[in-house]
Amino acid sequence: MTAGRNEADLNGITQLGNQQTKYPQDYDPKVLETFPNKHPDNDYFVKFNCPEFTSLCPMTGQPDFATIYISYVPGEIMVESKSLKLYLFSFRNHGDFHEDCMNIIMKDLIALMAPKYIEVWGKFTPRGGISIDPYCNYGKPGTKWADVAWQRLAQHDLYPEKVDNR
Amino acid sequence: MTAGRNEADLNGITQLGNQQTKYPQDYDPKVLETFPNKHPDNDYFVKFNCPEFTSLCPMTGQPDFATIYISYVPGEIMVESKSLKLYLFSFRNHGDFHEDCMNIIMKDLIALMAPKYIEVWGKFTPRGGISIDPYCNYGKPGTKWADVAWQRLAQHDLYPEKVDNR
Amino acid sequence: MTAGRNEADLNGITQLGNQQTKYPQDYDPKVLETFPNKHPDNDYFVKFNCPEFTSLCPMTGQPDFATIYISYVPGEIMVESKSLKLYLFSFRNHGDFHEDCMNIIMKDLIALMAPKYIEVWGKFTPRGGISIDPYCNYGKPGTKWADVAWQRLAQHDLYPEKVDNR
Amino acid sequence: MTAGRNEADLNGITQLGNQQTKYPQDYDPKVLETFPNKHPDNDYFVKFNCPEFTSLCPMTGQPDFATIYISYVPGEIMVESKSLKLYLFSFRNHGDFHEDCMNIIMKDLIALMAPKYIEVWGKFTPRGGISIDPYCNYGKPGTKWADVAWQRLAQHDLYPEKVDNR
Amino acid sequence: MTAGRNEADLNGITQLGNQQTKYPQDYDPKVLETFPNKHPDNDYFVKFNCPEFTSLCPMTGQPDFATIYISYVPGEIMVESKSLKLYLFSFRNHGDFHEDCMNIIMKDLIALMAPKYIEVWGKFTPRGGISIDPYCNYGKPGTKWADVAWQRLAQHDLYPEKVDNR
Amino acid sequence: MTAGRNEADLNGITQLGNQQTKYPQDYDPKVLETFPNKHPDNDYFVKFNCPEFTSLCPMTGQPDFATIYISYVPGEIMVESKSLKLYLFSFRNHGDFHEDCMNIIMKDLIALMAPKYIEVWGKFTPRGGISIDPYCNYGKPGTKWADVAWQRLAQHDLYPEKVDNR
Amino acid sequence: MTAGRNEADLNGITQLGNQQTKYPQDYDPKVLETFPNKHPDNDYFVKFNCPEFTSLCPMTGQPDFATIYISYVPGEIMVESKSLKLYLFSFRNHGDFHEDCMNIIMKDLIALMAPKYIEVWGKFTPRGGISIDPYCNYGKPGTKWADVAWQRLAQHDLYPEKVDNR
Amino acid sequence: MTAGRNEADLNGITQLGNQQTKYPQDYDPKVLETFPNKHPDNDYFVKFNCPEFTSLCPMTGQPDFATIYISYVPGEIMVESKSLKLYLFSFRNHGDFHEDCMNIIMKDLIALMAPKYIEVWGKFTPRGGISIDPYCNYGKPGTKWADVAWQRLAQHDLYPEKVDNR
Amino acid sequence: MTAGRNEADLNGITQLGNQQTKYPQDYDPKVLETFPNKHPDNDYFVKFNCPEFTSLCPMTGQPDFATIYISYVPGEIMVESKSLKLYLFSFRNHGDFHEDCMNIIMKDLIALMAPKYIEVWGKFTPRGGISIDPYCNYGKPGTKWADVAWQRLAQHDLYPEKVDNR
Amino acid sequence: MTAGRNEADLNGITQLGNQQTKYPQDYDPKVLETFPNKHPDNDYFVKFNCPEFTSLCPMTGQPDFATIYISYVPGEIMVESKSLKLYLFSFRNHGDFHEDCMNIIMKDLIALMAPKYIEVWGKFTPRGGISIDPYCNYGKPGTKWADVAWQRLAQHDLYPEKVDNR
Ligand SMILES: [Ca+2]
Ligand SMILES: [Ca+2]
Ligand SMILES: [Ca+2]
Ligand SMILES: [Ca+2]
Ligand SMILES: [Ca+2]
Ligand SMILES: [Ca+2]
Ligand SMILES: [Ca+2]
Ligand SMILES: [Ca+2]
Ligand SMILES: [Ca+2]
Ligand SMILES: [Ca+2]
Ligand SMILES: [Ca+2]
Ligand SMILES: [Ca+2]
Ligand SMILES: [Ca+2]
Ligand SMILES: [Ca+2]
Ligand SMILES: [Ca+2]
Ligand SMILES: [Ca+2]
Repeated sequence: MTAGRNEADLNGITQLGNQQTKYPQDYDPKVLETFPNKHPDNDYFVKFNCPEFTSLCPMTGQPDFATIYISYVPGEIMVESKSLKLYLFSFRNHGDFHEDCMNIIMKDLIALMAPKYIEVWGKFTPRGGISIDPYCNYGKPGTKWADVAWQRLAQHDLYPEKVDNR
Repeated sequence: MTAGRNEADLNGITQLGNQQTKYPQDYDPKVLETFPNKHPDNDYFVKFNCPEFTSLCPMTGQPDFATIYISYVPGEIMVESKSLKLYLFSFRNHGDFHEDCMNIIMKDLIALMAPKYIEVWGKFTPRGGISIDPYCNYGKPGTKWADVAWQRLAQHDLYPEKVDNR
Repeated sequence: MTAGRNEADLNGITQLGNQQTKYPQDYDPKVLETFPNKHPDNDYFVKFNCPEFTSLCPMTGQPDFATIYISYVPGEIMVESKSLKLYLFSFRNHGDFHEDCMNIIMKDLIALMAPKYIEVWGKFTPRGGISIDPYCNYGKPGTKWADVAWQRLAQHDLYPEKVDNR
Repeated sequence: MTAGRNEADLNGITQLGNQQTKYPQDYDPKVLETFPNKHPDNDYFVKFNCPEFTSLCPMTGQPDFATIYISYVPGEIMVESKSLKLYLFSFRNHGDFHEDCMNIIMKDLIALMAPKYIEVWGKFTPRGGISIDPYCNYGKPGTKWADVAWQRLAQHDLYPEKVDNR
Repeated sequence: MTAGRNEADLNGITQLGNQQTKYPQDYDPKVLETFPNKHPDNDYFVKFNCPEFTSLCPMTGQPDFATIYISYVPGEIMVESKSLKLYLFSFRNHGDFHEDCMNIIMKDLIALMAPKYIEVWGKFTPRGGISIDPYCNYGKPGTKWADVAWQRLAQHDLYPEKVDNR
Repeated sequence: MTAGRNEADLNGITQLGNQQTKYPQDYDPKVLETFPNKHPDNDYFVKFNCPEFTSLCPMTGQPDFATIYISYVPGEIMVESKSLKLYLFSFRNHGDFHEDCMNIIMKDLIALMAPKYIEVWGKFTPRGGISIDPYCNYGKPGTKWADVAWQRLAQHDLYPEKVDNR
Repeated sequence: MTAGRNEADLNGITQLGNQQTKYPQDYDPKVLETFPNKHPDNDYFVKFNCPEFTSLCPMTGQPDFATIYISYVPGEIMVESKSLKLYLFSFRNHGDFHEDCMNIIMKDLIALMAPKYIEVWGKFTPRGGISIDPYCNYGKPGTKWADVAWQRLAQHDLYPEKVDNR
Repeated sequence: MTAGRNEADLNGITQLGNQQTKYPQDYDPKVLETFPNKHPDNDYFVKFNCPEFTSLCPMTGQPDFATIYISYVPGEIMVESKSLKLYLFSFRNHGDFHEDCMNIIMKDLIALMAPKYIEVWGKFTPRGGISIDPYCNYGKPGTKWADVAWQRLAQHDLYPEKVDNR
Repeated sequence: MTAGRNEADLNGITQLGNQQTKYPQDYDPKVLETFPNKHPDNDYFVKFNCPEFTSLCPMTGQPDFATIYISYVPGEIMVESKSLKLYLFSFRNHGDFHEDCMNIIMKDLIALMAPKYIEVWGKFTPRGGISIDPYCNYGKPGTKWADVAWQRLAQHDLYPEKVDNR
Repeated sequence: MTAGRNEADLNGITQLGNQQTKYPQDYDPKVLETFPNKHPDNDYFVKFNCPEFTSLCPMTGQPDFATIYISYVPGEIMVESKSLKLYLFSFRNHGDFHEDCMNIIMKDLIALMAPKYIEVWGKFTPRGGISIDPYCNYGKPGTKWADVAWQRLAQHDLYPEKVDNR
């Protein structure tokens, strides 16, 4: 195998390929890790599809399930995907409303890597016949991505997907 | 379980997890309850997928069925989803045209929580080979969401989903 | 329009095309009506697809929703479909477990029209993340349809449809 | 049942729930009926999904089939859906090109109810391996809906649905 | 173009490619035409998919729509598909119950071409929220296809397709 | 609301509608509850669709996710669905191989309610590009359901569903 | 049958319903025929779905297959669909690159009927694991449709459909 | 690259990877080539999915299109897939009825490689609103595959796929 | 975390969770590992869905891609899924015909774990417009699973999935 | 066969139809070849669907899989699709992060053919339950395509496709 990233390019990544992975027992944004963006002059999107998210209802303690879609435009650094997995896993025994979870995830990732743009969309399974899908986004203040964030919010989800609870 | 919302954050929610739930026998917007929005500085969307809506035809009394999609941008307070379920349930023995039901639901939710933006889209099953899908929306007057409401209405449903009555 | 059924063939059908339809307020098998089978020598299947069924939970009073598939092989008489609609509507304010509803519907239709074979399959929406799909069937005792009923039960649903609660 | 529309609100509707319905034998826009719009201050969309449309080819007399999607923003009055069914039925023995049928339907509905906006999209089954989908629209002259009509036409159908004739 | 069928093989086919096609105005099995089976020693299936069937309700006169699937094992002769189209077209202004139409179509095709086996399955669009799918079949008496007919009937439709009226 | 089950019929159900639900912290079959089968003379199937199952990998501790389909033919008693939810929830912090989980669930339900027949099929999400779907079943020894269990196992899954890891 | 187009309206159409159709043996735009647009004041779209296109690879001679979507806004005249079928058929034994075929079809249709706007999108089956989908469009110079053409090109296909070569 | 087949194993294959491929101008079974079956003791199935089949109508000359599924159990030799492609291509300018094409393909492949079992299923696009799907099969006389052929024919296509001509 | 398997139960598994995984450079069945079956008295199925298989064409060297479905009934030991991943990976730079690959995989797994039953189905992407799907199976000689293998082969794939090369 | 491209038009294409194709053993942009754009005055899009992409993880060496969608507006020259296949194949034994691969592919194609516009979207299969979809684009500086690139990036993927890892 030849490789496009050398060791220096991969510096600071401790979880990917690590066999002694410790799974956090509660919500913990400190497990998140980053690596340098090698294409910083060229704005581009990265999307994470995360269909294996689960948290707890803060009032009843019953488990909730969601697919989360995270899209961002990287700045100088990027979030490493295995550490993102561990971070999302840290919600497993944590109780919060759906709307709060999505805002918290977005804010933690903003704090971690200062992206130019980011959006987080959760699609939960129904409770009592109704399912809830929160969506939040952010563009770096003082850049044209702040305008993009507003435009994308204003245009959000004109075509809700079909949901029939089966 | 750790939790992101403390007791004060959940104050005023009486239906979620309540075993003595009384199901209203007729249309009743008073069952709706709210809780505070913890992210008021950050405009974001919340969508409810409600595929279990049923009402009656005001002329024939026969039952109608719909999936309703409600999307809104919260202001200071947010509608609690179990109380929303009870509210939608209150249409079960109530007679009204499809177009009226959607407008009524939207107006009740505006009165309840003064959202920055809201839209309601009902997709009914066919009667006589034709199905009816009303869509209404609203943006808070005097805010940029009023413009968004107009833009979203003007762009509404350029790609009608395939319907073949099966 | 010419027609294949003359007036005598349609005798006893009171609901089809009737504008004064009264919708029953509670479970009522007496609304069911029949018409004669014009092809009694030729065993054949008739299936009703009923995606607009709703009843109530006997413990909590909350509404349940299901799609019901009813397939039968007619004997001398057949159930008229508009009266079947009224019958299913009579469960709207009635409380019973999913499994009981399916057995009751099957038994009422057996009592009504003495079919050679009948099966009823309900597919409900989830409560608490789990959905329930009861299936029951029947073949006229002393006929080869009794054996068919057993064979169909033994082979039932080897390929459960994908369900993801959305 | 309680009801949101009183008798006055339903005045002029003669077909809905009527058992003596006469089906017109040829194209007849006079069967169309209207009822008052109770939400005239609040522009909103109503869509009719009509998958059971059939007409005849004006050259060969062979039957054509289409699904028609009609979306409009009501003005003072609205078209009643059962009368719409009868109107579409009146094409059953009428011969015209696909493109002409869509324009005629749109113009008849404009004449009937003076909507703020309307669009009609027909999706026909193939003849000779090719299917034809005409789309026309209209915005009330002198209103902002005239601009919307142009914008929607300019943006029409950037994503043609997959068609494989099966 | 070279061709596998010579003129004698095509003898008796008058409708295929005929420009003066007359469309029958009422139910008329005499329009059906046949051609010889060139592979009579080798039992095989031919299926016709017919999604453009329409007839009238014998009580209300309103149009009904169905997709019909016809499968058969030819004997000495086979039905020509354009004449089949004309035959199905002849139900366009004819009133009959769904169950009757399917039995009539099957019996007419048996009388026409004496197939070894045939089955007819109609899948109609809903009226009053319920759709009806009749299925009938036949195997030539005194042949093993009579047993096959029974086996296929006994195994019919263990997996009803999903129907949600949209 | 009238109801088909009286209080005696519902005796012993403690979780359904109970607001003080305690969620078990580890694997615990004792949370399962039953209710009497009111149709014991008539063998029929009940299926539970459970798309919200999660457990842990016994070697790495990382979370696993599955949809589980449980089908059974009841004997004298039936498992109550809310207690089944709690039971499946008890695997949330429990580590076991996919194949073991399915066998354990089946054996616990056999011990609980002595069904005539039961089968359990788990469909897990992929790890390392491969997903695992275990299926086990059981028929009561000495009854014809034991033969059915063998027949169903021998015929299991001749048509694997399409999986592409997206 | 009544008809909306009289003989004069249909003048010049020689292929529709014609039994002596000659299928062209090579690429031949002269087979294209037109008929007058009866709604010239009202800009509208017509789309042709053509899933039965086949041509040859100019280097290897092997057959290529595509679905072609043609959308246009008619000017004074419109292309007749059966002649379009013959025209597309004329590529059957013609060799050209995918990208060239789409541009040629568009240019021939512009030359034929001077549309206000037209676009042609071909979706080919894969060769060597890769499939090619060319898209070209055109707006009449000096009209607002020229701007529309640019806008539609700039917005083209932001959501590529899923392709997995199966 | 290491390889499991040596040169001797590939002997007689002239088309695969050959740049000078000549495409036959008419129906020609002589282009078919074979290679030895390396697993002759172990009966197994091989299926070819061929969605790019086209022939001509013997009466009108217009092109027909189909997807053909060919499944067989090899004997001593197996058909090479590139030569199969050339063979199917040889129908491109050949006229024959759908039912005849399927029987001819099956018989040519039987003559070529003496399979233990083979079946051929063609699914054509509609003409005049009706599509035709012929299916034929064969088991080697004197082997248990002859019985299998009969069983598979008797069980053929109990679940016709949904066809709506779009 | 509690766990259902103790250390002894996991003995001999070296790859699962191992960070120093060496990926084999050529076909190598020795990477396969096993673990004990804890439910040997209870025959059950385990299926592996493997949509990420790739090998090379032995004549041209070009890469081939497939989804492979492996189903088996375990005997005393079971194949560990991460080692199965490495084994399938070992075909990455290996050249063999599709049909040979499937037979080799099946035989290697039989040699590894002596299953009661096993089947392997590969579904490849097309080359030259045609895709190939080999299927082979095996039942332990002298057991009833040998009969099952024959029955499953005889019933194999009566409903080929739709393939259109897109 | 007649052909639209003459020999001069095809000059410089060495791989298409070439039997001695050498597959590169590591990442190699020099295999890319071009041919002249015959429609340079008419901006249009060409999309390549590439569902058979595979590379290696730079840290663990394990194989990754993706579908790549490449869309571009040609300048003077265009990339030949078989050489593109070889180029993408050259990543087969090359290690790089998903985000890097997409940027590299885009930059190599810009260097090769100086397109007016290009975009590259990779959709990978999941690792650890999360899948990554990078998207990058480019418009020629100093042209209106530079603005288009920004607009398309700002509007990118408002509707993430459903992903459930199965
Ligand atoms: Ca669903
Ligand atoms: Ca359809
Ligand atoms: Ca549908
Ligand atoms: Ca008649
Ligand atoms: Ca689903
Ligand atoms: Ca009321
Ligand atoms: Ca289709
Ligand atoms: Ca549905
Ligand atoms: Ca009651
Ligand atoms: Ca998938
Ligand atoms: Ca596909
Ligand atoms: Ca090797
Ligand atoms: Ca279809
Ligand atoms: Ca496909
Ligand atoms: Ca030519
Ligand atoms: Ca999926």
